[in-house]
Amino acid sequence: MQNLIDNFDDIQSIKKKLTVINIVDIAEILENVENHKLLKIFRLLPKDKAADVFSYMSPENQKIIIETITDKELATIVNDLYLDDTVDLLEELPANVVKKVLKNTDGATRKIINQFLNYPEDSAGSVMTIEYVDLKKNLTIKDAINRIRKTVDAKETFDICYVTDSHRILEGTVSFRDILLANDNQKIEDIMDKNIIFAHTTDDKEIVSNMFMKYDCSSLAVVDNEKRLVGIITVDDVVDIIQDENTEDFELMAAITPSEKPYLKTNVFRLALNRIPWLLFLMLSATFTGFVIHNFENQLAAQSVLIAFIPMLMDTGGNSGSQSATLAIRGLALNEIKVSDFFIIMIKESFVGLIAGIVLAIFNFARLIILKYDPLVSLTVCLSILLTVILANVIGGILPILAKSLKLDPALMAAPLITTIVDVISLISFFTIASIFLPV
Amino acid sequence: MQNLIDNFDDIQSIKKKLTVINIVDIAEILENVENHKLLKIFRLLPKDKAADVFSYMSPENQKIIIETITDKELATIVNDLYLDDTVDLLEELPANVVKKVLKNTDGATRKIINQFLNYPEDSAGSVMTIEYVDLKKNLTIKDAINRIRKTVDAKETFDICYVTDSHRILEGTVSFRDILLANDNQKIEDIMDKNIIFAHTTDDKEIVSNMFMKYDCSSLAVVDNEKRLVGIITVDDVVDIIQDENTEDFELMAAITPSEKPYLKTNVFRLALNRIPWLLFLMLSATFTGFVIHNFENQLAAQSVLIAFIPMLMDTGGNSGSQSATLAIRGLALNEIKVSDFFIIMIKESFVGLIAGIVLAIFNFARLIILKYDPLVSLTVCLSILLTVILANVIGGILPILAKSLKLDPALMAAPLITTIVDVISLISFFTIASIFLPV
Repeated sequence: MQNLIDNFDDIQSIKKKLTVINIVDIAEILENVENHKLLKIFRLLPKDKAADVFSYMSPENQKIIIETITDKELATIVNDLYLDDTVDLLEELPANVVKKVLKNTDGATRKIINQFLNYPEDSAGSVMTIEYVDLKKNLTIKDAINRIRKTVDAKETFDICYVTDSHRILEGTVSFRDILLANDNQKIEDIMDKNIIFAHTTDDKEIVSNMFMKYDCSSLAVVDNEKRLVGIITVDDVVDIIQDENTEDFELMAAITPSEKPYLKTNVFRLALNRIPWLLFLMLSATFTGFVIHNFENQLAAQSVLIAFIPMLMDTGGNSGSQSATLAIRGLALNEIKVSDFFIIMIKESFVGLIAGIVLAIFNFARLIILKYDPLVSLTVCLSILLTVILANVIGGILPILAKSLKLDPALMAAPLITTIVDVISLISFFTIASIFLPV
Repeated sequence: MQNLIDNFDDIQSIKKKLTVINIVDIAEILENVENHKLLKIFRLLPKDKAADVFSYMSPENQKIIIETITDKELATIVNDLYLDDTVDLLEELPANVVKKVLKNTDGATRKIINQFLNYPEDSAGSVMTIEYVDLKKNLTIKDAINRIRKTVDAKETFDICYVTDSHRILEGTVSFRDILLANDNQKIEDIMDKNIIFAHTTDDKEIVSNMFMKYDCSSLAVVDNEKRLVGIITVDDVVDIIQDENTEDFELMAAITPSEKPYLKTNVFRLALNRIPWLLFLMLSATFTGFVIHNFENQLAAQSVLIAFIPMLMDTGGNSGSQSATLAIRGLALNEIKVSDFFIIMIKESFVGLIAGIVLAIFNFARLIILKYDPLVSLTVCLSILLTVILANVIGGILPILAKSLKLDPALMAAPLITTIVDVISLISFFTIASIFLPV
């Protein structure tokens, strides 16, 4: 394919090839094509594939296409796109291009699009689609199947059909499987499930993805304040939501302001800006650790051998605390841990810290004795490790839960902040123990 | 419901309530019920719900049920479970209970179960299901719909149907939507898609989830070495795979041996064991940092004011490096970054480090001057910050990519290890710069 595109003389072969390649792969190929070839190849696509390929292209390529094609071509594409894809597209485009797109949709669609664009970012409303199958409860199975066969082409999913009353209020759901299994003369209301799982338009998408994970559904109804059905969310969108949320957690946990753009497409200044405020905050917090050292300067001057243990102690404390914090943050994100588990986690982490601390202390003691360090120095170091690891585990385990109970994102209580807090604690422990065993 | 269960005298009300509650919620309620009530309530479930509720129960509760119910009851449940759920169940149960389950399945199923249990852990084979719809290409649409209506009850999905030849070799796929849209007299081969996306039984499930994300499919064919269709993977399982993989990355990145059990169900010794080897390794690595300090002891003795800056410098370097490493690891996991992007990332991270380093250095310089530190000391500290941040960013950005190119998990190159490496580098920079500006 690449070869055909590079030469670009055998148009017929390219056209033929395009009919057999998967739409996602075509969109990927088009990412590496020069601009002047992009539109030419796009126009070679079979009609029924064009909108699908378009929906998988990068915003940059979509913009190029929209700016160059005729209004009529654009209208065809926008018409073929699912509404949620159109909305995604509009959110990425500059204002003048958005205008061109909206000009080429009919009034009713334009109204719905504007409504979608007004849902809060990351809300269920902003990710839902309106291409669902809705049925009335007094339909017979036969009529329902006919209705579905007639309308299915424009629907994003029909696994689950939604039953609404004359005011569009959601009354139940019925799976297409159950429709197929029922008798032609049965009515929808005989087989529908009235126990409906649904989200509200303003629910955060995290709530949505948690419902999908809990109930293993393939689509989820979204209702407004009057319980009227306004859209559905399909599981393929949830996969993206889950990945976005995980990325957000990974970034927050590394003290980076989350960004939705991929790394390679983010410029250096934006990358720096997402990190600098956190680094500054943490750098200034770390100066507290400096104060601690400053306060114990006499101790250190008398026992300068202790200085060399500071990094090991700080790192070990930071690592232990981050381990506990990570497990707590992840457990909270997966709903495996609840705020009410606070005391269980505190107790568990104390014991884990005790076990880990003892093992680390023993290893270290053996090492220091072999290296012929003063036994009292060795004892000071090892007791400090033990105490630090226990405290670090408890702090790392409970801070994310405290954050959650204060409605903060638990992911903020990860390695960077925990490390800074544990540093202070480990050094105070170290110098206090030193002043007992190694008086100046 | 909780009230009804606590009193447990109004059996009819409990029974009635169970018919309207969602299966997932019932399974959740049963988690908090005393053992002697568990089986009683389970037996009150409507027949068609029992297996579904069972598949959502915890392994502990499943074990209690299996051990107490009659063989006949067990056979009914196992019969109603999807094969992939049965296999998941068997993997969690102790050997004697597995025996009881296998005794109550017929010979053919037992053979398939054993084959499934033999697929490598985390392979496509181990997560696939065999309840797919397969069609022959010479079937008419009418016959195909009839066939699907007859068999759909036992199939996990029928969104996508699979077309195989007489040797079970996969020839194409056809969506149920296209079947519904076609004319009754058309043949399956007229509308089937020959451009099939599939995985091999031995492919890692990470490959599977990447294919789902890339192609947005609702199910994926799994074939053996001869391209014979042996199963499919459905998107609801992929949601679990993605979450498992993310959890694995979160744990590895915090230097914890990944475990599949939720935190609250893991005992203290297992929790400690998953962390201690990493802490030991990192503790011993951190002693290198101690050697560096040891080597510059004279410098520190002469300029003891420098000691108090060690924690801030180490933490800032560690945080910068972890930020870069996290973005690189996440980019690699989402296939947004490739190994061939090595140099782009190195250059980008140098610039990000330069910008962040300059900002941090200026802030810090101002702070130190206000606090009336010696200007040469302030200059030493600030130049060290600048150099450390640049080096930390580059190291953090490229190590995950190096790991990937060496077929190691990039998530290993996260905060804990990066911090240890950057510590050494930041201290060497610090003391070297100090020896230039503040000669002893």
